[in-house]
Amino acid sequence: MSKKIVDFKVGDSIQGFFLVKSIKLKTSSNNKIFLDFNLTDRTGEINAKLWDCTKEDEKKYSEGKLIKVKGSILEWQGKLQLRIIKIRNVKEEDNLIIDDYVLSAPEKSEIMYEKILSYIDNIDNDDIRNIVSYLFKENKKELMFYPAAKSNHHSMHGGLLYHILTMLRGAEKFLEIYTFLDKDLLFGGVVLHDIAKINEMDSNELGIVSSYTSEGELLGHIIQGIKQIEKVSEKVDANKEITVLLQHMLLSHHYEPEFGSPKRPMIPEAEILHYLDVIDARMFDMKKTLENIEPSGFSDKIWTLHNRKLYKAKYNNL
Amino acid sequence: MSKKIVDFKVGDSIQGFFLVKSIKLKTSSNNKIFLDFNLTDRTGEINAKLWDCTKEDEKKYSEGKLIKVKGSILEWQGKLQLRIIKIRNVKEEDNLIIDDYVLSAPEKSEIMYEKILSYIDNIDNDDIRNIVSYLFKENKKELMFYPAAKSNHHSMHGGLLYHILTMLRGAEKFLEIYTFLDKDLLFGGVVLHDIAKINEMDSNELGIVSSYTSEGELLGHIIQGIKQIEKVSEKVDANKEITVLLQHMLLSHHYEPEFGSPKRPMIPEAEILHYLDVIDARMFDMKKTLENIEPSGFSDKIWTLHNRKLYKAKYNNL
Amino acid sequence: MSKKIVDFKVGDSIQGFFLVKSIKLKTSSNNKIFLDFNLTDRTGEINAKLWDCTKEDEKKYSEGKLIKVKGSILEWQGKLQLRIIKIRNVKEEDNLIIDDYVLSAPEKSEIMYEKILSYIDNIDNDDIRNIVSYLFKENKKELMFYPAAKSNHHSMHGGLLYHILTMLRGAEKFLEIYTFLDKDLLFGGVVLHDIAKINEMDSNELGIVSSYTSEGELLGHIIQGIKQIEKVSEKVDANKEITVLLQHMLLSHHYEPEFGSPKRPMIPEAEILHYLDVIDARMFDMKKTLENIEPSGFSDKIWTLHNRKLYKAKYNNL
Amino acid sequence: MSKKIVDFKVGDSIQGFFLVKSIKLKTSSNNKIFLDFNLTDRTGEINAKLWDCTKEDEKKYSEGKLIKVKGSILEWQGKLQLRIIKIRNVKEEDNLIIDDYVLSAPEKSEIMYEKILSYIDNIDNDDIRNIVSYLFKENKKELMFYPAAKSNHHSMHGGLLYHILTMLRGAEKFLEIYTFLDKDLLFGGVVLHDIAKINEMDSNELGIVSSYTSEGELLGHIIQGIKQIEKVSEKVDANKEITVLLQHMLLSHHYEPEFGSPKRPMIPEAEILHYLDVIDARMFDMKKTLENIEPSGFSDKIWTLHNRKLYKAKYNNL
Amino acid sequence: MSKKIVDFKVGDSIQGFFLVKSIKLKTSSNNKIFLDFNLTDRTGEINAKLWDCTKEDEKKYSEGKLIKVKGSILEWQGKLQLRIIKIRNVKEEDNLIIDDYVLSAPEKSEIMYEKILSYIDNIDNDDIRNIVSYLFKENKKELMFYPAAKSNHHSMHGGLLYHILTMLRGAEKFLEIYTFLDKDLLFGGVVLHDIAKINEMDSNELGIVSSYTSEGELLGHIIQGIKQIEKVSEKVDANKEITVLLQHMLLSHHYEPEFGSPKRPMIPEAEILHYLDVIDARMFDMKKTLENIEPSGFSDKIWTLHNRKLYKAKYNNL
Amino acid sequence: MSKKIVDFKVGDSIQGFFLVKSIKLKTSSNNKIFLDFNLTDRTGEINAKLWDCTKEDEKKYSEGKLIKVKGSILEWQGKLQLRIIKIRNVKEEDNLIIDDYVLSAPEKSEIMYEKILSYIDNIDNDDIRNIVSYLFKENKKELMFYPAAKSNHHSMHGGLLYHILTMLRGAEKFLEIYTFLDKDLLFGGVVLHDIAKINEMDSNELGIVSSYTSEGELLGHIIQGIKQIEKVSEKVDANKEITVLLQHMLLSHHYEPEFGSPKRPMIPEAEILHYLDVIDARMFDMKKTLENIEPSGFSDKIWTLHNRKLYKAKYNNL
Repeated sequence: MSKKIVDFKVGDSIQGFFLVKSIKLKTSSNNKIFLDFNLTDRTGEINAKLWDCTKEDEKKYSEGKLIKVKGSILEWQGKLQLRIIKIRNVKEEDNLIIDDYVLSAPEKSEIMYEKILSYIDNIDNDDIRNIVSYLFKENKKELMFYPAAKSNHHSMHGGLLYHILTMLRGAEKFLEIYTFLDKDLLFGGVVLHDIAKINEMDSNELGIVSSYTSEGELLGHIIQGIKQIEKVSEKVDANKEITVLLQHMLLSHHYEPEFGSPKRPMIPEAEILHYLDVIDARMFDMKKTLENIEPSGFSDKIWTLHNRKLYKAKYNNL
Repeated sequence: MSKKIVDFKVGDSIQGFFLVKSIKLKTSSNNKIFLDFNLTDRTGEINAKLWDCTKEDEKKYSEGKLIKVKGSILEWQGKLQLRIIKIRNVKEEDNLIIDDYVLSAPEKSEIMYEKILSYIDNIDNDDIRNIVSYLFKENKKELMFYPAAKSNHHSMHGGLLYHILTMLRGAEKFLEIYTFLDKDLLFGGVVLHDIAKINEMDSNELGIVSSYTSEGELLGHIIQGIKQIEKVSEKVDANKEITVLLQHMLLSHHYEPEFGSPKRPMIPEAEILHYLDVIDARMFDMKKTLENIEPSGFSDKIWTLHNRKLYKAKYNNL
Repeated sequence: MSKKIVDFKVGDSIQGFFLVKSIKLKTSSNNKIFLDFNLTDRTGEINAKLWDCTKEDEKKYSEGKLIKVKGSILEWQGKLQLRIIKIRNVKEEDNLIIDDYVLSAPEKSEIMYEKILSYIDNIDNDDIRNIVSYLFKENKKELMFYPAAKSNHHSMHGGLLYHILTMLRGAEKFLEIYTFLDKDLLFGGVVLHDIAKINEMDSNELGIVSSYTSEGELLGHIIQGIKQIEKVSEKVDANKEITVLLQHMLLSHHYEPEFGSPKRPMIPEAEILHYLDVIDARMFDMKKTLENIEPSGFSDKIWTLHNRKLYKAKYNNL
Repeated sequence: MSKKIVDFKVGDSIQGFFLVKSIKLKTSSNNKIFLDFNLTDRTGEINAKLWDCTKEDEKKYSEGKLIKVKGSILEWQGKLQLRIIKIRNVKEEDNLIIDDYVLSAPEKSEIMYEKILSYIDNIDNDDIRNIVSYLFKENKKELMFYPAAKSNHHSMHGGLLYHILTMLRGAEKFLEIYTFLDKDLLFGGVVLHDIAKINEMDSNELGIVSSYTSEGELLGHIIQGIKQIEKVSEKVDANKEITVLLQHMLLSHHYEPEFGSPKRPMIPEAEILHYLDVIDARMFDMKKTLENIEPSGFSDKIWTLHNRKLYKAKYNNL
Repeated sequence: MSKKIVDFKVGDSIQGFFLVKSIKLKTSSNNKIFLDFNLTDRTGEINAKLWDCTKEDEKKYSEGKLIKVKGSILEWQGKLQLRIIKIRNVKEEDNLIIDDYVLSAPEKSEIMYEKILSYIDNIDNDDIRNIVSYLFKENKKELMFYPAAKSNHHSMHGGLLYHILTMLRGAEKFLEIYTFLDKDLLFGGVVLHDIAKINEMDSNELGIVSSYTSEGELLGHIIQGIKQIEKVSEKVDANKEITVLLQHMLLSHHYEPEFGSPKRPMIPEAEILHYLDVIDARMFDMKKTLENIEPSGFSDKIWTLHNRKLYKAKYNNL
Repeated sequence: MSKKIVDFKVGDSIQGFFLVKSIKLKTSSNNKIFLDFNLTDRTGEINAKLWDCTKEDEKKYSEGKLIKVKGSILEWQGKLQLRIIKIRNVKEEDNLIIDDYVLSAPEKSEIMYEKILSYIDNIDNDDIRNIVSYLFKENKKELMFYPAAKSNHHSMHGGLLYHILTMLRGAEKFLEIYTFLDKDLLFGGVVLHDIAKINEMDSNELGIVSSYTSEGELLGHIIQGIKQIEKVSEKVDANKEITVLLQHMLLSHHYEPEFGSPKRPMIPEAEILHYLDVIDARMFDMKKTLENIEPSGFSDKIWTLHNRKLYKAKYNNL
């Protein structure tokens, strides 16, 4: 079997199938055109160049399609790059399933969807359950593939569901430790906190986000989510305080004004929602970073981790 | 005629009618009870103490009512204070009109309301005019007395209308200078930008705010205003982009995340809206501050002006 | 039975036993001496004044002793205050147990100590277990009563143990969700993270901290803890990487340089340690704050919560 | 007629006349020399490369001269670039007027100069009018071409005059709305606020700034302007308070210490001056940015606009 | 001999002569008038109250005069306070020299003045020496008593001279270590850096500052000093670069924009000037603070030292 | 004699010997391999490229070895670059001494070491002298070549010793001016403040740091130094207060939390230590920067100097 992206090293000659995440015709500094690809498989992503091409080559390949590539791995400005030697589109007889080449959450979307539904069913308060259930079901189609971000944590097929589900697991635990917390608000807040990412970003069915929507840029998913709750709350005729509390949870879950929250949490459930969110993002990024370094080694500075390096301990990794 | 609050000096013996803005029974550091008042007339506000009182005295006087007071002015911790010597409630035969004792905008509410209406009528785009007109008329009753803030700039009877009207005048001017600006969006944004202050704060009909509402604390007038636009937009079946643009103007008009705007202005009309708002607040506070200092003198540090002192020039004030 | 401090309201006449947390002879603004007390019972703390006293009265009462008091509750500058009418020291025949008047953790110290020990026994790595176990046992005497802070969260008898134990419970949960985390480091870090608070603060056996130690002021508990690990690590001949990792966890657990951490977490266990610490502090403060407000009400601004107000929901509190 | 720079698109073959703003001989990453130009016409600016040149080619072309160019437009690192195929200097028979190729203010310098003069004549206070008039006339020669900045807003021929004039128009409007403002100080402050940019930057007669002067780097135009007022005030024997007030307006007009104002405005005229300055810069940048994007589109992040994207509404641009 | 202020303790009965730094008639919270004094001797300053006085008492005593007082020391809100029992003005026969009661620099003004002059004579460059010498001599009368600040470091009779002289001593040392520094600029910058404090503050001949001047508030001593250099430079016909360099040193010597320096040092002599200034202020404040605490003790938080506590070591103070 | 690096100019043809500081095989943007060198002599450092090489060439040259090079100087992205035409390793018969090609402190390590030792001998307090002497001697071997930083100030052979020695000279001066300072603590703090840089960074014997150590990354030299003092203090049985004071000096010497000091100086000796450290770093960087610019010229923005430009005066440099 051919090497996976996560295992590529400088000097490797590689051959295999990849998904085209993006493709662009560019001009080099010495005035030649070339094709610039971003390719993925389930394990990672790599930049690739096809030199000595013609303008027509651009039309042969498409985003969201699979290609077969032969090439070699080199390093360019501190990052791995794939220099393409041979390239062709996948044929029917290659007999491939596209899902195998898409960066995906570790659980199947259908299963995650059902698990989250059972958390929702477990909400006792009718109003909260109605609002949450309505919005969760209304967005079912998109939830099956939407990532939780464009390029940061959980930016993968099914990433949004996976993020919600992991946070619900954490929420369940905190409810055991801090028993004065309200389960219904906390579960509700977790499920809804990022639901409007579906309206903020345009994702294709592979979970790849090409851009933000206009409304997403002008308002952001927090405000978009609050507007959705407002409408659904009217539909299900929910209590006003409950509606405002759910909206407050969305509004405050980024915690810092400069990260988009004009109000900080004023109820403990909102406080916990914030920390569940942060911790899940951090653990995701840290796990991914550590997978790519050797014991006793440090990662590069990771922008999403406050520009920190991570260290991989030797004692428990040998 | 008796002296007005704005003219009080240390050592004055005064006698006159005032409005009770607040009243509270307190205990002094040497364990005696006294009544602590905040009194206003059209020109200003002063703290007043009634010493040697009984618990029953508290019930005699009420917030929002007029009283007649005799007393003397002293200074306590850098501020003027009125020591009450004689006090009684106003009688019918005093023949007073309460409005004369309320801190009020310099124009009549009815007239300001009509002037703003004519700006709204001047909006060409049907959707914008419909949304703005709907919300402006729906809140007519409250607009007749609501202040623009609890204790900062324009915290007076009719203050919100006055703030909107002055900003509209400025907007009109900028439209002449920067002709690429969209009049409809700018007028619309000005009228709506603080409209949900009516929902954020509880004001009595004298324009005195006792407290913030729960929803006001949990969401704030920016978010509350966005929700109102969302609903009205549906009612008048407005274009979606227009709805989002108006919501974006509300969202961004405080400009800085730490002052409540998670997004900065992305259209020039929102940028101008912000500056009109800031300038009107600053001019209001500066005018008021300068009225209380002598030529060649400095004010104290004013908290709402970034803790600055103001200077009153001599050359043009003699 | 007499009212507890947590239930006092303005105007109450109260009678009961209290612990003297502090006592000081002061002079009032009208030049009279009085005794200024801070009194506690298991439920809270209140300031109390004895007026019309003599200099000799000061010597009659002592910090850490119980007194019987009769008095009335008033409000002074927004806080409740107890005006003492009658006061005497407790007599043997009052038959009181001092522990009943001390603000204490909800579990007995002996039991918490044992529970934490069993977490420590569960550490697989010998070096980590040896270091942690050594330091935990060496400080047993102080751990039985030390609070986790001078006046913030968990500032009560047994507070440090309670803080550690609650965090261990949370750590256990996160290990289930984020399975790549190292249990031994995480448990070790939790137990040791604040252990040097014992050296940073001087606490009496009631868990009341009078002051910081000189070394505590000059270095702080993070550095003090690192020095202790250094010495114990030599004693138990621990692996150097493990020693440094535990020291790194202490060093980074306040996360922000301005809160005392010159390095941010570089291993995921240190990241989680930080969040467990913050969440436990926040939940403690929020729970305490909410207990003192009515449904639909807001608290005052709480300094330890970034100066936020908290809201107590009505829907789940009626 | 040939295409203007503002209309260039990737793939265009273009031919036309341009002004050489800068020219430099460089070495490419594959070790070949080439000529690197910045070219302008009245509508914009573009980078251009002449490949396969010799060292002698550099001497053929000069900054501030017109050339004729044939070439094609490509994209390099997100920006348009002109690849030069043919190039020659302009000949007399081309019959061109250099002003047509210079980025210029929309009004003629002479006219703007006269308009500003009539504002100055309108200043009633003799001292203010004398100081302002003196400095404005003394700098007449440079004012005819100086830009208001090296590369930010109003960096074009006549930009400084245009900036002053637009601000005077705004000042006039605010004087109608906020009638307590002093017209003389405000007009004076507007005219003088950036006058020392002439001493801070070296501009050629096309309004192109090559560099800052040494004094400009070491002191900055605010301090330089204050020094000029000091000297002129002595010459015209002005009142000291008036001199200091004008100096204070210069000193405070950047408002924030980190932008060069060690004092914030302490008179309302200085406050308004600041906002007029900011608004004019913002409107200039926004107008320019919006001209280059399509309806429903967003611009890139603009550094001078706090790194914001701008949105061009569809509803009023179709 | 009677106790000095620095040695006062709670409970002391004291009797002695003091200088009246300020005097004000106030009203207490229980509505009685009293006289509020700030008194000094050479060793320190203390607040004092005369209760049970009449309005006439205020006229008996004057700022800047000596009084004889009998009273007792008590503590009020954490600070010592003198309760006056007997008070009278000083009589001729008391035979006192006012200088003995004024907080003063440790060296005589005349001597410091001469020492600084000899540093100035040591400046080789004629232009620098002329400018510095001119300004230093022109301000001789005020330099004999001016403090370096209103209430911070060196706020005492002769404080400005003392500050300059100590910094010159430090400058001399750095010139030996960092031999590439220019002696003339450095000496010149030190002498002039605060010279305009004389114009920024109003001080009486005891070195007590009552207030800032209007120009001081509106421009500040940095800008005022730059203006003075500008004028003197013209008078002595100095080289322009030298003038600008001296002005740059003044402009940048507070280093941070938020402390008044819009430009940071761009020459090493300006960098050293800044550090000499900061170090001298810090050493002054630290020395004073340490004199008032016991070995092994901590001071209170000192506002002028970034709100730090200081520690007085035991090992070298016993 | 051949030109030194500090004197290289664009267009120079150069020939000479250099030390290989680093070497790396890279691929150019047009897909060719080349060798990328950093070369030094005693005067500076330059990047150099060998184009048209083979993979085998990389093995011929080694870091820390001398080479002979012929080539030409060009400019690439604002920096000088050496294009290598001929290259060979140094032969025995070239008769070179490697030290002549290493960036080195201006004094010999042996001499600096002895000078510092005599400062240490001058410490009167036995405990301080013992601790300092122990750590200084223990690290003698590394001190002979260690730099004070990886790439900032004093990053050269013997740089750490030079930094310590210069600071001791400054300390000596301040002790004369501020006589209340404790000489022993100050000398001790200066010698030890950066001693653990030896453990934080890996340097070869040429004073070139390849990387930070793991412990250096995870704890930093401040904490590492504190741990060393802790151990040595036990060995020499030092007084506890003295040990803590030395540790406090290390802990606080970066002053700002965000630069690694969780505590600010609480003793004046720590305050002075900080300023000596900063001043020495600044003077080093400024001297070096000024050597490379012409009179009347400005440097580029220097990152280590808060991104400032420096100005080289004309008047004293001609």
